[in-house]
Parts: sequence; C-alpha cells; structure tokens
Amino acid sequence: MMQEKGKLIVISGPSGAGKSTVVFKAIEGREDVCFSTSVTTRKPRPGEVDGREYFFVDPDRFKEMVENDELLEHAEYVANSYGTPRAYVEEKLDAGLNVLLDIEVQGARQVHEKMPDAVKVFIIPPSLEELEKRLKGRGTDTERAIEARLIRARQEYQEADFYDYLIINDDADKAAKELSAIILAEHCRFNDRKEYLK
Amino acid sequence: MMQEKGKLIVISGPSGAGKSTVVFKAIEGREDVCFSTSVTTRKPRPGEVDGREYFFVDPDRFKEMVENDELLEHAEYVANSYGTPRAYVEEKLDAGLNVLLDIEVQGARQVHEKMPDAVKVFIIPPSLEELEKRLKGRGTDTERAIEARLIRARQEYQEADFYDYLIINDDADKAAKELSAIILAEHCRFNDRKEYLK
Repeated sequence: MMQEKGKLIVISGPSGAGKSTVVFKAIEGREDVCFSTSVTTRKPRPGEVDGREYFFVDPDRFKEMVENDELLEHAEYVANSYGTPRAYVEEKLDAGLNVLLDIEVQGARQVHEKMPDAVKVFIIPPSLEELEKRLKGRGTDTERAIEARLIRARQEYQEADFYDYLIINDDADKAAKELSAIILAEHCRFNDRKEYLK
Repeated sequence: MMQEKGKLIVISGPSGAGKSTVVFKAIEGREDVCFSTSVTTRKPRPGEVDGREYFFVDPDRFKEMVENDELLEHAEYVANSYGTPRAYVEEKLDAGLNVLLDIEVQGARQVHEKMPDAVKVFIIPPSLEELEKRLKGRGTDTERAIEARLIRARQEYQEADFYDYLIINDDADKAAKELSAIILAEHCRFNDRKEYLK
C-alpha cells in the first residue's frame, strides 16, 4: 500500500459531553493519531515546554501569523490569543498521522473554511437535561456557570450544521467505537485512493 | 436512542476482487444487515422459493415495474431481466436494517441517481496483475474469459468515480474491518442524527 496522508479530525462539543473520555478511548494504543499543538501568546507556566504544551510566541509574531494565513483558526481567551499552526498540522498529515483538534464551533468553522477536507465530528450528551445533570454532578461549576454552559451548548447546537458526524455519547465505549470507525472510514474515501484505479 | 433508519450499501468491484469474502467477514454475526432480493423474469429453478432467492415475475409485470419506477436499477442478462425492488428495500431500511446490494457499476449508477443517499463502496484487488493471477488461480475461466473479465474491470475502473469509498482487498480481514467501519461511520452522519440537537 502506498503511504496514505493523515486526516485532520476536528472534535467539538459542549463541555460535559465527555469528549476527552471518548477521544482517549478511541485512540488508545494507536500510533497513527496525535493531537495538534496550539500557538499561544500566553506566558509559559513553570514546567511547560515550548513545542510541547504550546508554541509560545509574542503578540507581534501572533499577529504576523494571522496576517500571513499561518493559522487554521484562532481565538482570544482571557486576554490571550490561541491558534492552530497550519504548517505544523500539514507536516504531521504528510507524515501519515491523523491530527486531532479539540476546538469550539467557531474555530471549527474557520478550519472548515481553510481546509474543507477536515473531518468534523460533533460529540454531544444524549440530551441537554443529561448535560445539566453531568455538569452538576462534576461539582466544579457554580449554578451560574452551569447556566452559562447550557446557554452556550444550545447556541453551539444551532451553529453546528457544517459538521460531518454527530456522536451521541450515551455510552463512552460505543461513542469511542464510532469515532474509531469514522477515522478508519475516512481513510477509505474514494477520492483519496483513486490512484489505485490507474 | 431513537430508531435509526438503515443504510443502503451498494457494493461493486470486479469478479475476482474477493467481494463476497470481504462482505461475509464484515457482516458475520450482525443482525442489522441483510441482502436485497432481486426481481427476475427468469424461471425459478427446482428448490428456489419466490421471495427468497428472487421475486419471480413475468416479463409484463417486469416492464410495468420499470415504467412505474418500482425498481432502483435493472439490467438484462442472458435474455432475462433482473432488478432491485424499491419498495422491498425501503421497507427493510425503515425497519432499521442495512441493506447490501452487490451489483455492477452500471446498476450502481442507477441506484445512485434514484437514491443519492446510498453508500457506494467499490472493492478492488491490489492491482490488475493480481486480479489476473487470482482469476487464473481459480481455474474456472478460459483464457479468453479471463481476458474479457480484465477488459471489463479496466472499463469499470474508469466509470467508478461516483463511489464514496474504495477498499483495496490485499487482506480480507483488513478489508472487512474497513467495510464494517464504513457502515458504522455512515450511521453517525450529522444529517441523519440532527434530531438530537433539538
């Protein structure tokens, strides 16, 4: 078989949907999957290594990256900027690695526009009632923060129509199997393999 | 989870690609997959049961089915007509069953036009040289018949551009895993599940 290019897999979904659990179960033991590393203007914390947790850059360099279209998506968060470096992602994909990107819907839409081939997966809990229950169960958020998360989830649901796949996380093992199947199936796309027909 | 509709899975590929082996490995033990039953004008052979091997109809009824758009595809073969009954397929899909349809490229194109949502999978051997080797190895065809099969395969390769997936059968277990993944992934399509976002 010829070396197949990796796939960029964009994962989104409300906080409390159980995304991380599903993703880690899906990629357990796989060496063909990696996470993307973001660029940020935030200062490194003790123990953080440039190129491992983040690529740390100053605001001028970040601005330049945005202007030169070096980022697949970017956003502001608590006075700092974060973005996904296009060159880094493409290097991994060219090496045959699937790159996972766990980002919010707005960032995912930017990626979708710049790289339409990216596989977009939206992971949700079985219902918003269940989401509320899970958020309350975690005990990490105030009532008001939970209310804000639910409003945000509802809003993201409205804007999610450009995703390719929707995984309902009512059972993490089942959801992980679905995510694995999606990654494998996407590697079987006719257009990616049509060289074999020559 | 709400009852999900089944998927129509169209499988094609040259004779000698090992389609049947891949398909049987992929659906082994699954109760959510069935094969379609064709309509034919050919006379039943001893032991054949109407509605099991085929739905047996006379040429007038077949003609009427074509005119009434009751067939998803149809073709002539050795003076007999064969077709896929739309109502039968839709009944299975509505019951949540995935329906497999093993047909040639021309028939697949007809299905594609009448039911664009059908999942089209093309299964091929690693190369045409390998196909030739396999056909010779089977020892069931004359030299001339093998030559005709190879010409036909080459022609089908040229016309296969509307398929969604391409499976290279260099290893039947791997190919079967890919087919299973495709079926599972197709059930995770955003548009089929967006009811959950309401």
